[in-house]
Amino acid sequence: MTQSHAPLVREVIAVDEHGQNRTLFIPAERALTVYVDKRELVTLMTLGAHPEWLVLGYLRNQRLVDSIAEIESITVDWEVGAAAVKTRHGITDIEKRTEKRVVTTGCGQGSLFGDLMGAFDSVTLPDSKVTQAQLETITNAIRLQDSVYKQAGSVHGCALFSALPESPETAEQLIFVEDVGRHNAIDTIAGWMWLQDPKNVQGANKVFYTTGRLTSEMVMKSAQMGIPVVVSRSGMTEMGLALAQKLNLCAIGRATNKRFLCFSAPERVFWQQI
Amino acid sequence: MTQSHAPLVREVIAVDEHGQNRTLFIPAERALTVYVDKRELVTLMTLGAHPEWLVLGYLRNQRLVDSIAEIESITVDWEVGAAAVKTRHGITDIEKRTEKRVVTTGCGQGSLFGDLMGAFDSVTLPDSKVTQAQLETITNAIRLQDSVYKQAGSVHGCALFSALPESPETAEQLIFVEDVGRHNAIDTIAGWMWLQDPKNVQGANKVFYTTGRLTSEMVMKSAQMGIPVVVSRSGMTEMGLALAQKLNLCAIGRATNKRFLCFSAPERVFWQQI
Repeated sequence: MTQSHAPLVREVIAVDEHGQNRTLFIPAERALTVYVDKRELVTLMTLGAHPEWLVLGYLRNQRLVDSIAEIESITVDWEVGAAAVKTRHGITDIEKRTEKRVVTTGCGQGSLFGDLMGAFDSVTLPDSKVTQAQLETITNAIRLQDSVYKQAGSVHGCALFSALPESPETAEQLIFVEDVGRHNAIDTIAGWMWLQDPKNVQGANKVFYTTGRLTSEMVMKSAQMGIPVVVSRSGMTEMGLALAQKLNLCAIGRATNKRFLCFSAPERVFWQQI
Repeated sequence: MTQSHAPLVREVIAVDEHGQNRTLFIPAERALTVYVDKRELVTLMTLGAHPEWLVLGYLRNQRLVDSIAEIESITVDWEVGAAAVKTRHGITDIEKRTEKRVVTTGCGQGSLFGDLMGAFDSVTLPDSKVTQAQLETITNAIRLQDSVYKQAGSVHGCALFSALPESPETAEQLIFVEDVGRHNAIDTIAGWMWLQDPKNVQGANKVFYTTGRLTSEMVMKSAQMGIPVVVSRSGMTEMGLALAQKLNLCAIGRATNKRFLCFSAPERVFWQQI
């Protein structure tokens, strides 16, 4: 796997309401075309912070590969905007599995919702909870996080936290990722998790944070990573809620500082006596 | 064309940080599968306010139909979540034209950026401008607009304004559309515009407003509608900027009240003497 970073912001000049030039930053955005065993799969528009994790997580979240052991190498070359994925044995039926197109709310990474609800019939998420103190730690960590967002705006952020029952007063941030698309951000985390945890057993006592809305795909991707608690500073969509209820996944929205709204599975929150 | 409205918000109960139940609204979100001449094309997740305009605008913005005259009928049936499009003569090469997949920043409605930049070589936008007073009228109109966003959050809004040189102090809102995905919102406006203006001549002296970021697709879709000025309360992405500069499209971000940043084509703004 290469480690192809690229500059994350670009300096531009804009004209403000007084007609004055102002120098500011905007997030970088570059096309990365993914080739799997030399066959073109998809072009992702990305900030470019962690393209290899992104590609790995994309393949994982699209359920094109079932295990990281299927991947031999991922090579990113920004000169040509390409990520070359080599699999060990090819991906069976890749044509057929990538043909159906759905433009979803959180946008277009192509899993059909009906199929999806069915596919999750057998999913049982780990039996873990989160405390209110841990939630507050998480929102504060995000607030204080140094970020492209603070410098340039216009990006979504995701983070993964460890929230252990033996440390009910705190949570530990494991990784924070930003991208121009929030799907890219979560896919990057999915790729990173697979590298840390090839057998995908560590969703328990994890909390997934996103700055974006809790759409069905956010809930779905969190469930695929085995993470039972999702937190957002934004709101919830109807299909996101339906899927979260079905999965018994705890979806917490409008989370800032001490405040939040728990939309599903409130039994996964230790409620403080107030 | 049917006129299939559907409820736009749903009442749900969430638990707040004090452990208290709170009743609130979330935006509706429903799957609408589009069939063109009985062939399944795509599934859109939508709020459902104006599904017929949405489907029409989707076909237009994906450049699957070149003229509204090619459409015989669009029938939406929420019972089965389907939109049946009948064309007069079929869409040539529909298989091939819908096969390439790009997951773009603003998310995944599938036009390849390289192709795209080429496709716009011949586009010349109308030679119209906007005044600062008109920009202020626009941001104020959006602020005061009654909306699903105010009631339930978690939706994007788009609007189309007429900003005439003979009325430099004001702008008129022609249509305001919200959807769970901002692509749906702009596609809905594109569909509505086609119904008002089948020959697509009325982009001049129009301003397109979006609550979302100014990504390449937003710029592209505005250009396809012939609209030379785009305004957002949000920021700009790098590819959005590149495309706007190429098209000489005036992209204005961070617009609230009197404040804004003009990222491209500042000659399209009448700058007040301050």
